[in-house]
Amino acid sequence: MLFGIATKKDDDWWIGVTNPDTPHLSKYESLMFQGNGYLGIRGSLEEHYLNEKRDMFILGTFDKFKKEATELPNLPDIVNIEITVNGKSLSLNHGETTNYQRGLNLKNGEIIRAFDWKKGPDKLHFEFRRFVSMANCHLFVSEVKITPISDTVRLQIKSGIDGQQTNGGTQHFIEGNKRLFNARFVQMQTQTQNSLVKFALTEYHRLFLNETELTLNPRLQIERRQVFANYSIDVEKDQCLTFVKYANVFCSSDKDLKDNVSEDCLHQLEHVGRETYQKLLANSTKAWAEKIWNNSCVEISSHNNKPQIAVNYAQYQLVANVPCDYSKNIGAKGMTGEGYKGHAFWDTEIFMMPFFRLNIPSYAHNLLIYRYLNLIGAQKKAHQGGYKGAQYPWEAAMPEDAESAPLWGSADIITGEPMKILSGSTEIHVTSDVAFGVYQYIKNTGDYAFAKRMGYEIILQCAQFWASRVTWNSVKNSFEILDVIGPDEYKEHADNNAFTNYMAHWCMRKGAEVITDLRQNDLLTYNHLNKKFNLKQLVKELIEKASMMYLPEPNGDGIIPQDDNYLSYKKINVNKYRMSDSTSEIFKDFDLKQLDKIQVTKQADVLLLLLLFEGNFSKKIIKKNWDYYEPKTIHDSSLSFSTHAILANDIGLYGKAFDYFEKNCQIDLGTNMNSSVKGVHMAGLAGTWKIVIEGFGGVRLVKDGLQIQPHIPSTWKSLKYSFVWKGIKINVLVTHGCFSVVADGKIKFISHKHVYYAEPDEKILIETKV
Amino acid sequence: MLFGIATKKDDDWWIGVTNPDTPHLSKYESLMFQGNGYLGIRGSLEEHYLNEKRDMFILGTFDKFKKEATELPNLPDIVNIEITVNGKSLSLNHGETTNYQRGLNLKNGEIIRAFDWKKGPDKLHFEFRRFVSMANCHLFVSEVKITPISDTVRLQIKSGIDGQQTNGGTQHFIEGNKRLFNARFVQMQTQTQNSLVKFALTEYHRLFLNETELTLNPRLQIERRQVFANYSIDVEKDQCLTFVKYANVFCSSDKDLKDNVSEDCLHQLEHVGRETYQKLLANSTKAWAEKIWNNSCVEISSHNNKPQIAVNYAQYQLVANVPCDYSKNIGAKGMTGEGYKGHAFWDTEIFMMPFFRLNIPSYAHNLLIYRYLNLIGAQKKAHQGGYKGAQYPWEAAMPEDAESAPLWGSADIITGEPMKILSGSTEIHVTSDVAFGVYQYIKNTGDYAFAKRMGYEIILQCAQFWASRVTWNSVKNSFEILDVIGPDEYKEHADNNAFTNYMAHWCMRKGAEVITDLRQNDLLTYNHLNKKFNLKQLVKELIEKASMMYLPEPNGDGIIPQDDNYLSYKKINVNKYRMSDSTSEIFKDFDLKQLDKIQVTKQADVLLLLLLFEGNFSKKIIKKNWDYYEPKTIHDSSLSFSTHAILANDIGLYGKAFDYFEKNCQIDLGTNMNSSVKGVHMAGLAGTWKIVIEGFGGVRLVKDGLQIQPHIPSTWKSLKYSFVWKGIKINVLVTHGCFSVVADGKIKFISHKHVYYAEPDEKILIETKV
Repeated sequence: MLFGIATKKDDDWWIGVTNPDTPHLSKYESLMFQGNGYLGIRGSLEEHYLNEKRDMFILGTFDKFKKEATELPNLPDIVNIEITVNGKSLSLNHGETTNYQRGLNLKNGEIIRAFDWKKGPDKLHFEFRRFVSMANCHLFVSEVKITPISDTVRLQIKSGIDGQQTNGGTQHFIEGNKRLFNARFVQMQTQTQNSLVKFALTEYHRLFLNETELTLNPRLQIERRQVFANYSIDVEKDQCLTFVKYANVFCSSDKDLKDNVSEDCLHQLEHVGRETYQKLLANSTKAWAEKIWNNSCVEISSHNNKPQIAVNYAQYQLVANVPCDYSKNIGAKGMTGEGYKGHAFWDTEIFMMPFFRLNIPSYAHNLLIYRYLNLIGAQKKAHQGGYKGAQYPWEAAMPEDAESAPLWGSADIITGEPMKILSGSTEIHVTSDVAFGVYQYIKNTGDYAFAKRMGYEIILQCAQFWASRVTWNSVKNSFEILDVIGPDEYKEHADNNAFTNYMAHWCMRKGAEVITDLRQNDLLTYNHLNKKFNLKQLVKELIEKASMMYLPEPNGDGIIPQDDNYLSYKKINVNKYRMSDSTSEIFKDFDLKQLDKIQVTKQADVLLLLLLFEGNFSKKIIKKNWDYYEPKTIHDSSLSFSTHAILANDIGLYGKAFDYFEKNCQIDLGTNMNSSVKGVHMAGLAGTWKIVIEGFGGVRLVKDGLQIQPHIPSTWKSLKYSFVWKGIKINVLVTHGCFSVVADGKIKFISHKHVYYAEPDEKILIETKV
Repeated sequence: MLFGIATKKDDDWWIGVTNPDTPHLSKYESLMFQGNGYLGIRGSLEEHYLNEKRDMFILGTFDKFKKEATELPNLPDIVNIEITVNGKSLSLNHGETTNYQRGLNLKNGEIIRAFDWKKGPDKLHFEFRRFVSMANCHLFVSEVKITPISDTVRLQIKSGIDGQQTNGGTQHFIEGNKRLFNARFVQMQTQTQNSLVKFALTEYHRLFLNETELTLNPRLQIERRQVFANYSIDVEKDQCLTFVKYANVFCSSDKDLKDNVSEDCLHQLEHVGRETYQKLLANSTKAWAEKIWNNSCVEISSHNNKPQIAVNYAQYQLVANVPCDYSKNIGAKGMTGEGYKGHAFWDTEIFMMPFFRLNIPSYAHNLLIYRYLNLIGAQKKAHQGGYKGAQYPWEAAMPEDAESAPLWGSADIITGEPMKILSGSTEIHVTSDVAFGVYQYIKNTGDYAFAKRMGYEIILQCAQFWASRVTWNSVKNSFEILDVIGPDEYKEHADNNAFTNYMAHWCMRKGAEVITDLRQNDLLTYNHLNKKFNLKQLVKELIEKASMMYLPEPNGDGIIPQDDNYLSYKKINVNKYRMSDSTSEIFKDFDLKQLDKIQVTKQADVLLLLLLFEGNFSKKIIKKNWDYYEPKTIHDSSLSFSTHAILANDIGLYGKAFDYFEKNCQIDLGTNMNSSVKGVHMAGLAGTWKIVIEGFGGVRLVKDGLQIQPHIPSTWKSLKYSFVWKGIKINVLVTHGCFSVVADGKIKFISHKHVYYAEPDEKILIETKV
């Protein structure tokens, strides 16, 4: 497995670089992202480089600049530390850098960078450390140790708050006060232009010479949208100067705000600034363990630790990016970059949700409450389109927003004109995907309190949307769904996209089931919901429309047509694009109008349908459709590999499965240095975990409940993992011969059509079938 | 004379660098500015560097972002050309650069850069040329010649329009369409957020291999606020690839707009793109000659050509920045950087105007029409303050704006709180300065048409303001002016600042004179103005208040008190700050409250008064005040040296005069690499010309008309110059023994109290007095 980032043979929790490699900084900035579900900061270096992209976001602080799509505004930078040695600026692009090592500790998100730097006669040893605290969501702490090796040097350190950052040139912030408090605390206040969220950022520095703290007030430097503290000090050979930066940020939408952003920010920092870097890091490390590592276990025994690192890394990013409260969601790139503007997609429910509901269900719960709040936006959107119920936005930002997808994309290669982006209007399957996520969560956790308060309503609102969206075709004598974009986004005007139709059908069915079930078993909830819907009429409509829904069946060759016309389009040789490392390669040869009429698929579409509804189709049908669609799929989306890997494993294509697993791990960690510059692929990372647990580990949520049916790659010795099922912790150990299951409660699960029952702590040993 | 920029011994028209010196790029960007009075572009390099500051402005397109001061918005960058050689990006910070030379041709503003670059096995010769056309104000043309020296290389060239630029983090633009026309023309449309000025920028590229033009369509690359054309081509050893970029920009406030910005922009470029680089450059060179070099002559014969280069450079910048139409003015930094936001100050009338009225009076005329239009803003400002007439803004942007000075500056070093900037409210002498500029222009040119249509009205409006601004002091039994900032901006609440009082007195006197004179000699104009003023009452008020005006007289020691309290303040040793290369050094030790009570002067204040009213004070008084104030003045403004140089020359301190001349030349051209990063100092540059012509050349506008009373530095052999007086071209040649005057019309001038009359082409030879 090829990684574009360094790893250590003996450390499953470290990724990094062993040389500065500044040309590829943007990649590492995304990969070495630090976050705590409130604050997210890219792994930019402290000193500046040409191709850096500094980003710092606070979840949920969306702002809309004029006609641009709303987005997470890029906050003033607090990472910057510029160091001058005898008048020469520290830069890895100049002088001589040796013993370079920079790494991210996946256990606690600490970045450590150490190196020797020689410029002219001066040689120094540098050690940088920093973290975004998981224990205090507002806090960022950074430490630099500088030791002159050659001779006494004059060090100048400039550190501060730099508000000249933009989102790709767009400035969301109005500049507020910049000032100094108590001669030591540097503060900047600012506010978003339109959403009017207020922010305060404060920095405080402490300096130590060897162990002795220096009482050194900074020289304040104020520039436009910038405020810096400057320190100047002579350090002798072998003395160690320690520079600690304490920085925090508050915003007016914080739920823990006491007074106002400026005072809260200052007061907290005055308090926190008394602690040592190590103490604050220890608090954060403990919080990381409590949030994830104490709950989740995935141990892969393989000939190398890359798969283990990949799955650890995936979990690191998922946890660093999952919102710590329910009013926010996870962007397609989390907070790791400006790509997709912090917007949440179906990626959350279909790709990321399994990780959270099987490991830390409280976060899955938060994410679904967000969708409940998001009903406001989704109802608005349905209403705007002339539909009933709730139509979830393709791109979601603030819960009350109807649709946040941008309207215009790149220019057409043929006409030169900008192309309209239709996803916001026609990529409508997301509405079923959200309902599907709700249903799976309830089934997985047994959280009926949520179901009654919010979950069922979401499902019903979605079902109602579909009932209003389907149209009657009197020739086919059935309801159909016209003019949509399915998962294969190359088809912009598909009629009866199989995935969309099956999911809509499922949604209406599920809605009908919920109503029927509540009426029989839970009149309280039924009556509560009946105030919002006319349930009697709705159930009738749902049953009727679902039963008359057109669901594309396998044709004579066993192929489920992706849509009404796909199978009639011309075929081309797509190998060139399948092999390509870069995205959108196909657009160099074809424009969207042309792709619309070619049998080329962007990403798993029919195959995803087969995976999500695995009980509905025979292995034979799955195999036939695999053989048909897989060679036509160019994986121009990070959502594609994981579906292919799991499905391949299911149908016994174990080599392919492992290939796709490796490819999936490489989406971000691989050698393509351009793939992650605007952020990592959260659903791709979740896919890594999914392939391991749902694919190789075989954990599935099927019609009859929990299924555990593992098959691990031949190069792996064993796979050990745990997950939570209805509050019960289940531990599984898979080897090539057999697998064992032990739970801390009474459980029932299925494996190869056999039902197993286990008492608490009873180990069930099952032979692995091939 | 020390310059921080390279010059050539045998070329008076070249400034440049002979090594890349990328750490000081910002300085060279300002110095190598290219402009044509409409479009201005900083001399950034084509490829990117960390500390670059790309700026492109169109005069008069001010935009105000929220509560920030209005400013010239920084347009999308069109200079960028990124070159990749066998996959490696061209950068002077990597590989090996030899034979580097980059220079600006002061005759026509062409920048030429040539060097050899070796990276790994590849060595190439590069030659970059570019100019902003003086013949077509919208046009920028750039040419790169690349010749592989070692072997065939794969060249990739990326060139386009980059709208991710900001003004120090503030984004003024809304993004519009980005697209391709006819497969070759790349266009971006954009608009300012608030002033709603629309812009279109278009680029077109042509490629030649040796002499043969290639038909190569670009691969379009569209990013956020960016659109690039990409070319890829193999070039063999010793072949020469020529890449020509034609770029233009139109805006909706253009007076030559035919259709709309997008179409005009495209159509013009389609037309212009047929010409060669050389042809278009020749057009521009011709336009430069017609605009300035055919009209102005300054020839210094000295032991080196630095004074000559300095004065050529000053003229280059003045002409590149003077607006080509009357609705705009010259910013304190022209268009050469973001400093002072493109705002015009008293710098224009007091420091720059002499150059224009004595060389190209039509531009002086334009600048004063601007002030006539600016009456709207000035009347607003007077009204807002509760005054009558017109109070010109301390910082002027759009003519209709009342005051554009920012309200807040840096934080106070003592309290840490942001400091209020009072200039906009209390630095009121600018109103007299504008009237003074008008009067001098009329006297210099004899343009009574302007005087009657606009000039007199400006003077009267200003005089009326002063009559309403002065306050009666019954103890002093006179009118006084309280609470102002004079030229010495360290005194924020000065009472009876001598400069302000004398100028206000002059203004009211001049107003009364104008009324009296018109009533006697030009009833038509009198009646016209009488519709706007009650002239009878006004003249009475002006005469009364002027005659009762308190004008600080020299005290017993011959010292004119700078203000009521200055002479009582404590004295400090200011040598440290006088020697300092950087600005605002004194603020590291004192805050404004403290400076307010110290006998330290920021810049020529009383001394400027003595210079502007030279006829009113004896040489003895001037000398005494020089001895008192000069040692207390720390020249923390670029406006200070020229006044000191000229005054020193006047009173026979020739060594000091030359020292100050050199210091003045070094404001921008000197070795302080930080002084010009936010733009050059237009008034400082004008000061260079002023010292040479008004100081050493002795050309003055005195009470009785033109005075020519030269005295050149001892290191100079001769000074030859020309200027225009009432439409007559006058040529002067000064040596150490004598000077000659020849004019192309009948003239009268004064020299050392003697009046000379000359017939056309008659040479008058006068002995130089010491």
